[in-house]
This record gives sequence, C-alpha cells and structure tokens, in this order.
Amino acid sequence: MSYSIKELQRHVLDFAEQRDWLQFHTPKNLSMAIAAEAAELMEHFLWTEGEASRRVCDEADPRAAVEAELADVLILALQMANVLEVDVPAAVERKLAANAAKYPVDRARGNARKYTDL
Amino acid sequence: MSYSIKELQRHVLDFAEQRDWLQFHTPKNLSMAIAAEAAELMEHFLWTEGEASRRVCDEADPRAAVEAELADVLILALQMANVLEVDVPAAVERKLAANAAKYPVDRARGNARKYTDL
Amino acid sequence: MSYSIKELQRHVLDFAEQRDWLQFHTPKNLSMAIAAEAAELMEHFLWTEGEASRRVCDEADPRAAVEAELADVLILALQMANVLEVDVPAAVERKLAANAAKYPVDRARGNARKYTDL
Amino acid sequence: MSYSIKELQRHVLDFAEQRDWLQFHTPKNLSMAIAAEAAELMEHFLWTEGEASRRVCDEADPRAAVEAELADVLILALQMANVLEVDVPAAVERKLAANAAKYPVDRARGNARKYTDL
Repeated sequence: MSYSIKELQRHVLDFAEQRDWLQFHTPKNLSMAIAAEAAELMEHFLWTEGEASRRVCDEADPRAAVEAELADVLILALQMANVLEVDVPAAVERKLAANAAKYPVDRARGNARKYTDL
Repeated sequence: MSYSIKELQRHVLDFAEQRDWLQFHTPKNLSMAIAAEAAELMEHFLWTEGEASRRVCDEADPRAAVEAELADVLILALQMANVLEVDVPAAVERKLAANAAKYPVDRARGNARKYTDL
Repeated sequence: MSYSIKELQRHVLDFAEQRDWLQFHTPKNLSMAIAAEAAELMEHFLWTEGEASRRVCDEADPRAAVEAELADVLILALQMANVLEVDVPAAVERKLAANAAKYPVDRARGNARKYTDL
Repeated sequence: MSYSIKELQRHVLDFAEQRDWLQFHTPKNLSMAIAAEAAELMEHFLWTEGEASRRVCDEADPRAAVEAELADVLILALQMANVLEVDVPAAVERKLAANAAKYPVDRARGNARKYTDL
C-alpha cells in the first residue's frame, strides 16, 4: 500500500473520534499505552538470542502477532502526534539530523557505542 | 511536510546503512530500543495528572524534547518494519479493522473498558 | 510473612536452578523481562485516572492480578541481583541516600518537580 | 547487609512520607515509574549481546549505574506494595508456586519455551 503519513494519521484519529475516545487520549495515557504495546512487541523476542530473533517472523503465526503489536505502537504514536499536533515527517527528519550530528558516519561506522563514548 | 510512509522508511534505513548498523538491528534489539524510547517519552508525563498532561507541550522546551522522543519511537518502529519487511500501511489498516471488530462503535462509544468487559 | 531479602533471593534462585534456566538469565534478558512485567503491571492502571487508580485493587479480582504482576517484577529484579551479585539492601540504602541528597526534605516537600528544577 | 523485607519497605515509605509525596504515589503513577526505571536499567544492555551482557558489570562504572537503576526498580516496587498493602513475601511465594505449576521441573528443564508451548 502507498499512503502519506497524514492519511494514516487521519484514519487513526477517525477511529478514536467515532468512539468518543479523545477524552481518554491524554498525552499521559497515550504515552503509557505506547510503552505497554512496545513491551508486548518486545516479549516476542525475550528468550531468543539476537541473531536468532531475525528468524522469529519466518513463520506465519508469530509474524502476524508481531505485525499487530508493531502496528499498535505505530497507531498510538500517530495518535499522540494527532493529539499534540506534531508534524510527523518534520519531527522525524529533525531527529535524524540531530542523530547524524551525534553519530557522524566516519566515527559511528560499524560500532554501537553511545555517542558520548565515540 | 507531506511524505509517504515509504519515503520516511527509506530515510530511516539509509541512516542505518550509512553507519553499517544493520548488524546491530536485530528484531530483539530494535524491540528493546523501541521500549526504551517509549519509556523516555512517558517520563515527561509521569508526575503530571491526565488533563494537566495536555498542557505539558504548551511551552517550547518540553515540546521539543517530547517531539524528539516521539520521533525516536517512530524511527525505531519504522526501522523494525524495514528489517522485518512489514508493509506498514497494510499492517496498520489490518489492526484498525481488528480493533473495530473488538470495539464496535455502539458499545465502545465513550467508555474505556477493555473489549473483554464490554 | 516475615523474611529476609536473602531468603527471598534464595527461593528465586532455587526456582531457576531447578529448571536449569540460569543459561537464559543473562542480564540483558532479565532486564527485558523486568521491563515486560512492569508494563503488564502498568496496563492495569492505563485507562484509570490517578486518584481512581487507588481503588483498582479494592476488588479481589484485579487485586490478585496486580499482586501477581508486582510479584513478577520483584522476582525478576531479585534474580537480576542474584546473577549480578548485587547486595540488595546495600544498593537500596545507597540509592535512598543519593535520592535524599538530590531531594532535600525542605525543598522537595509536597512537590513533584524533578531535582534539576528544584 | 541483612534485612527483612519489612524493614526495607519501611525505609522506602519513610522517604516518601518525609517529603509528603504519598499524594503523588498513586498506583498509576508508581506503575509508570517502575516501567520507566526498568527501561533505564534495560538501556545498559541494549546493544550488547546476551552472553556479553554478563560482563557489562565487571567494571566499576557501569556496575554502579546498573545497581542504582536496579535499586530504583526495587524501591518503587516496594513502595507500590506499601501503597497497595501487599504482603511481599506472601505474594512472591504465591507467584513462585503458580509458576512452578505452569513450568513443572521435568518439562521446563533447560528450555525457555513459554508454558503454553511446553
């Protein structure tokens, strides 16, 4: 499928508006819901080691569940952007630029050290 | 800004490829990173009550930090979609449809009960 | 019940040893498991506002589930202390002392601001 | 150090009472704070693979930080037990017994599969 971010944000907002749920969608509650869904996503990889975790989604059954949890994280993050009126592409590009300054290609290449240790 | 999801995913992937970071981006590690960033986002709202949390981003300073944390969650979630080859709009629409079945408008309207209690 | 921390840590360790699970109990995995259980605990309070959350455990059914999630967090945190050979009471007292220095009674009294804002 | 759980809980409660912080310590907020601290603990192990994470605390510097984060998780979990009047050793023993029923030694031995897959 090909969509703009805005369209996806609109669908997520419509869903909440149709149910009169904006009253529950305080930034506090949405931040908790994102964290809760992120943890459910993480649980699929808990007892699998790093490289092996690349194969968790080879089978249809865990894949569908993982995609649903990942979608939940995205839905709630987009709804948080709706509620706080965040311009998502602008915020993402700004953060990528800030990360690029902290992790210059020549020093960050191939290592996972935190920027404070580079 | 107006972008497709695909474009945003491509920028996020480029960032990691330029730094040779795909080796660290196992699903396990990405799921941990999403959860860690989600928690940092949540910390901005920890000691503020629900309605008051709507005003946390009225001032420029917390707003910039909150937008950066929300962008981090989205960047990592989009990178997870890249690594697992998830069609993001399709996964989001599928999840919204599943949620619509669990929370029919007439019964979910204006209440925050879990679908098992509806 | 009255127990020393050490006794409780011993029971938690015995449980893992009897199942030959120490091989899976890397600090990385235990830290993920603690975060996952903490999120499950949090989910019980997600759509309830602050003061109302004090009454969630008045009924037997949510109470039992909440106590089980809280116990999971404690079990995994004590197992992490076992694996990393952390002296729990010493670490807790040290952290309380550090917090007391950051939050002196006269300035922290009755406010929830972060110490950097006091 | 040798302490009972009760003594540790008392110290944690005293800290909050001296600062008149019980008003902020709703179950909702404490559950968020536990999840936030658990995520900070997890961040120390994010980009380190499983076995290597056993050595993260060999050096004094990460060890002190990890012990402080683990202590934060424990302090907040014990404060949640204070606020909800949970008998900690009883809740832990009850949960270990429930886990023992789900993971019988003969079937769980040496494998990390979820009990639903045993």
